[in-house]
Amino acid sequence: MPLLPSVTAANVLVVGASQGIGLEFVRQLLQAPRVVHLFATYRQAKTATDLLALADQHPNLHCVQMDLTDEAQIASAIASIRAIAPNLHLAINCVGLLHNAAQQPEKAIRQLDADNLINYFKVNSIGPALLAKHLLAPLKHSEASLFATISAKIGSIGDNRLGGWYGYRASKAALNMFLKTASIEYARRSPNTIIVMLHPGTTDTQLSKPFQQGVPPEKLFSTERTVSQLLDVLSDVTPEDSGEFFSWDGSRLPW
Amino acid sequence: MPLLPSVTAANVLVVGASQGIGLEFVRQLLQAPRVVHLFATYRQAKTATDLLALADQHPNLHCVQMDLTDEAQIASAIASIRAIAPNLHLAINCVGLLHNAAQQPEKAIRQLDADNLINYFKVNSIGPALLAKHLLAPLKHSEASLFATISAKIGSIGDNRLGGWYGYRASKAALNMFLKTASIEYARRSPNTIIVMLHPGTTDTQLSKPFQQGVPPEKLFSTERTVSQLLDVLSDVTPEDSGEFFSWDGSRLPW
Repeated sequence: MPLLPSVTAANVLVVGASQGIGLEFVRQLLQAPRVVHLFATYRQAKTATDLLALADQHPNLHCVQMDLTDEAQIASAIASIRAIAPNLHLAINCVGLLHNAAQQPEKAIRQLDADNLINYFKVNSIGPALLAKHLLAPLKHSEASLFATISAKIGSIGDNRLGGWYGYRASKAALNMFLKTASIEYARRSPNTIIVMLHPGTTDTQLSKPFQQGVPPEKLFSTERTVSQLLDVLSDVTPEDSGEFFSWDGSRLPW
Repeated sequence: MPLLPSVTAANVLVVGASQGIGLEFVRQLLQAPRVVHLFATYRQAKTATDLLALADQHPNLHCVQMDLTDEAQIASAIASIRAIAPNLHLAINCVGLLHNAAQQPEKAIRQLDADNLINYFKVNSIGPALLAKHLLAPLKHSEASLFATISAKIGSIGDNRLGGWYGYRASKAALNMFLKTASIEYARRSPNTIIVMLHPGTTDTQLSKPFQQGVPPEKLFSTERTVSQLLDVLSDVTPEDSGEFFSWDGSRLPW
């Protein structure tokens, strides 16, 4: 783990680790020798079987049930984490909603539905903002720390050429604003913490599954490749980068 | 009214017209000779007394009760408007929430509250998006049309230097994304319609009242000045400007 080079013993949190990119972050961080405690949150045990199986093999992997849309659960999860490790050095939020059994991204404006839009904001924007609220205490200490959230280039207003996917786009733009704003407050209250938003590229996960048709094979990343690339990006960020939005190749994305 | 010069008989809608900038748009548009029907929405009669009094004096001013957070009310209001005027040429959305009796903008991340954040998104982002959905039919015709929404420079992610006001900022960033996305779909389905977002500058209204301390007098605009300036901006926009974000002086704002 080349990131956070000054930290010799790191406590790490991966939020939304049951599947996809989050689970792969857990797998790769379990191999990092400087990671002491690795905390991984999941929403439902029934869809987190691979994660829970990993925890059986790795005594330093602690799985914590948490629904990011319920602030009481965030507070309780962070409290249980701090009972083991008061300080965190790296936190990565991988929770994101694009589609589920009840809703699909809107192809046209006539499909806009207030309840579906609220769901997008709850999961993709408000949850991560509440996480940033509750992570201030464990990330604030004398060592370096980093809070990264998976965002999406499709949440870039300036990059929007195709339209569609109203709720997902707007919720990611709101996420970027929340974390940009949080980075300004963290710079005052916890100046050793860097906050960044990450575009992972299209990755072969359940989130992208219904939309992979037409994605050229070389642009559809495996989770292994995506996480390896994102860890490289995180290794290069400096305090001056806090509040910025990076693509998987390390380039800066427009708002 | 120098805007929409090709339209000789314009039907206009002002959403959120009971007070402040919206009410002043009604006042100034009542003086424009090319306006045939002027529709003005309000949420509650008890806070719309000035608007309702104007309607007593102006038979072409039609007041319509509508809560922008309730899609059924939007649909019903647009239907009642179209029964009088099937086509609209100009629609201006002035609804916005910064504070009310129950919530204040967050000075610090510890003040984030999920319910308050959802309120910001409902009023400032989702409501205008649903309005764009229901305005597609009345704005789509062979003449020019324009849909403008009051946004705020504080909703610019790139311009965010001070932090704070998490929910208001994120909801305006989401608004900008929704209307940018809508502008792309409108360009295909209703190519004569221009959509723009407007930063009005700090204006002496109930919204800004608690936050006017420290604003230099020359930067605190009267509603008359703000609306006059915004009408000038709208007069200059072209189809190439659709989906863009303008300040009161006509300059383009970053996302």
